[in-house]
Amino acid sequence: MKDLQVIAFDADDTLWVNEPFFREAEDAFCGLLEEYLPAHTTNRELFAVEMKNLPLYGYGIKAFTLSMVETLGRITEGRAPYRLVERTLAIGREMLEKPVVVLEGVAQTLEHAARSHRLVLATKGDLLDQERKLEKSGLADYFHHIEVMSDKGTANYRKLIAHLDCAPAHFMMVGNSVKSDVIPVLELGGHAVHVPFHTTWVHEEATFEADHPRFRRAETITDLLDYLA
Amino acid sequence: MKDLQVIAFDADDTLWVNEPFFREAEDAFCGLLEEYLPAHTTNRELFAVEMKNLPLYGYGIKAFTLSMVETLGRITEGRAPYRLVERTLAIGREMLEKPVVVLEGVAQTLEHAARSHRLVLATKGDLLDQERKLEKSGLADYFHHIEVMSDKGTANYRKLIAHLDCAPAHFMMVGNSVKSDVIPVLELGGHAVHVPFHTTWVHEEATFEADHPRFRRAETITDLLDYLA
Repeated sequence: MKDLQVIAFDADDTLWVNEPFFREAEDAFCGLLEEYLPAHTTNRELFAVEMKNLPLYGYGIKAFTLSMVETLGRITEGRAPYRLVERTLAIGREMLEKPVVVLEGVAQTLEHAARSHRLVLATKGDLLDQERKLEKSGLADYFHHIEVMSDKGTANYRKLIAHLDCAPAHFMMVGNSVKSDVIPVLELGGHAVHVPFHTTWVHEEATFEADHPRFRRAETITDLLDYLA
Repeated sequence: MKDLQVIAFDADDTLWVNEPFFREAEDAFCGLLEEYLPAHTTNRELFAVEMKNLPLYGYGIKAFTLSMVETLGRITEGRAPYRLVERTLAIGREMLEKPVVVLEGVAQTLEHAARSHRLVLATKGDLLDQERKLEKSGLADYFHHIEVMSDKGTANYRKLIAHLDCAPAHFMMVGNSVKSDVIPVLELGGHAVHVPFHTTWVHEEATFEADHPRFRRAETITDLLDYLA
């Protein structure tokens, strides 16, 4: 693909494992409340609290932990013993301390792509947490710029692309979320590659008609190298 | 001052009121625990928990709220009723919803400085929260770039200055914290202006010998205009 200058990569569930850790945490949290409610009901309540809090808290593990603590109160009608609060805080802390599991093919893909293109990381979540994961991943040196965004809508992508001094037509985004990584970038005139991951957060689910001239759906991230060739 | 290209401003307690809102929140939190401990002891315990959590949680209101929730457990020996947790979450939420109070002289100073220099905002804290405050402040248009940093040490300043395509000698930082806004920037060869604020978080306190060729201590932020003239 000629004229392509910058390739931006999503991080969570594109470069490394993330959503499965949230699912694990949700399971542990629902387990704490089993004597009050069945797990799927707790999970639904937690999701409702997360969505209510999203405009105020944003994304990331700290926001998620605060929403779990709030859900404790809802489900127990304000009678949760502090012991449950303590265990909920521990679930959040453990998430922040997880090792980083880099996905298959990622290091090889970045290494090749970095030879011919400027690579940037474009992610949302907690700033410190994303920096720490990048550090632990051993992938930091491939990236020319790290952008942690409060949300991945068109306005923030427009700012990022302008900031990179790059026309949208020379920009490509690679990620696992159709909603966050594909649709806004195509809307701005950029290229997008969807690399599906086996687990997607309900909030990120979106359907997308794959027939678009600047869009590709990859089977694995290494397919990117064929597109660039 | 000639050859100066970029002026970076700290945000909290430099452009707008911040620390007094944390103090108010601490008072409210200590008030919740009055039947357990005197306020100053609770406050000391909270600070200890915040410092313990800083490497994991970073800065900002969500981190602070999680530390308050944890402190509840410490002070009540794990027996805090959920009602206290609920009120603690409410203290955090109210902080996030505070109006932005721009400090005197700030708008005028930015307006003048922006005519001759590139202005950037360099702050730490929650990304979403800082973006929201900038939006509410009405000051966003003065800034060419917004940098939310996980911490304000020399490594992050070095990245920022490189990223701005600016030599340290052409860079000036303006802020209320000697530790975060002055010392690391002077160390890198940049200029720094300290604009003291009446309230400083203990963690940001530092002494600084004011006799340095690239350092100025301003009485108010408008003094900056005299330095630039």
